[in-house]
Amino acid sequence: MNKIITIAREFGSGGRELGQRIAEKLKIAYYDKEILTEIAKNTSLAVEYVQQVVENNPAINFPITVGGTLVHNYAAANNNISIYAEQCKVIKELAEKSSCVIVGRCADYILKDQKPFRIFVYSDIETKVARCLAKEDLGLSKRKLIKKIKNIDKQRKNYYNFYTSLEWGNKLNYDICINTSGKDISSVVDEIVSILE
Amino acid sequence: MNKIITIAREFGSGGRELGQRIAEKLKIAYYDKEILTEIAKNTSLAVEYVQQVVENNPAINFPITVGGTLVHNYAAANNNISIYAEQCKVIKELAEKSSCVIVGRCADYILKDQKPFRIFVYSDIETKVARCLAKEDLGLSKRKLIKKIKNIDKQRKNYYNFYTSLEWGNKLNYDICINTSGKDISSVVDEIVSILE
Repeated sequence: MNKIITIAREFGSGGRELGQRIAEKLKIAYYDKEILTEIAKNTSLAVEYVQQVVENNPAINFPITVGGTLVHNYAAANNNISIYAEQCKVIKELAEKSSCVIVGRCADYILKDQKPFRIFVYSDIETKVARCLAKEDLGLSKRKLIKKIKNIDKQRKNYYNFYTSLEWGNKLNYDICINTSGKDISSVVDEIVSILE
Repeated sequence: MNKIITIAREFGSGGRELGQRIAEKLKIAYYDKEILTEIAKNTSLAVEYVQQVVENNPAINFPITVGGTLVHNYAAANNNISIYAEQCKVIKELAEKSSCVIVGRCADYILKDQKPFRIFVYSDIETKVARCLAKEDLGLSKRKLIKKIKNIDKQRKNYYNFYTSLEWGNKLNYDICINTSGKDISSVVDEIVSILE
């Protein structure tokens, strides 16, 4: 049976790096952005559009105002539903193909029948800021960077909560939650791999 | 340097059993009720009284009504403070003596300078109920048992939050959080030991 590991992660917690390294150590597939490309291919939508929907917009039927009248943006809503449906399909196909690590994209929920090993990775805000700064200088003040980090996590939470009706980050939705505060991801990898082997 | 592992756990999550088995596997000391006995010895209070204070009553200055007038129960408040102070002392002494696993008693917070490996163990309510029933028949209906489980966790939370000013069960206060829902504790032990070795 395929070994499926899903990783949900707070922004700046090092979850993506952890996922990549776990996949390398276990010599299994790693999926993250690849899922977006696959969805885009199957839906004939641009990767950037798919990414924007997947990462920012869980609202299926968000009312907008046209000429003073509230209307519902059904076209966008339909796209969102199609993209999520396609995401479910792609993720299930990947999980059937071989053992793998999948980062984000509600994979823990989408694959619940396959009983994946569900990891949630988190950090304190100081570590997240330091990790973001070490990666690339976004030209933001520390205050603005903190705001950005919190905002991305809020979007992830909204997206997950909307499509799964569960609570993103709630311990009960994961087999293990790992605190990477003040830690090098490389030091955490071996710990996790020893659990998974 | 001593290896210190602290375990905070929800009632019925199997955290105590996990702690005992980890200590056995690693061949290090295990402390739980022993701490209460030590506190009782040092404060000349009955073990039962110490246990009741440690497990149920974080309120330092809980007002009571005497003859229609609100008064403060300073004697009980002083006892509570003495017991917590003694608990800190005993836990620090034990951690200095040798490597060990300590279950509960705010040990993660009390020993923060020694940087213990801090584990939080939790379960869904169904597993907690099943685990409690398998251990002993308390003669309670399922509804009452659930109420009792939730009540004990609430007491633990109140106690921890009061003395540490942190939030019991908040992921950030632990290095790792382990979901034991639907799992045998024996199967979780090896996973954790592989991390700790």
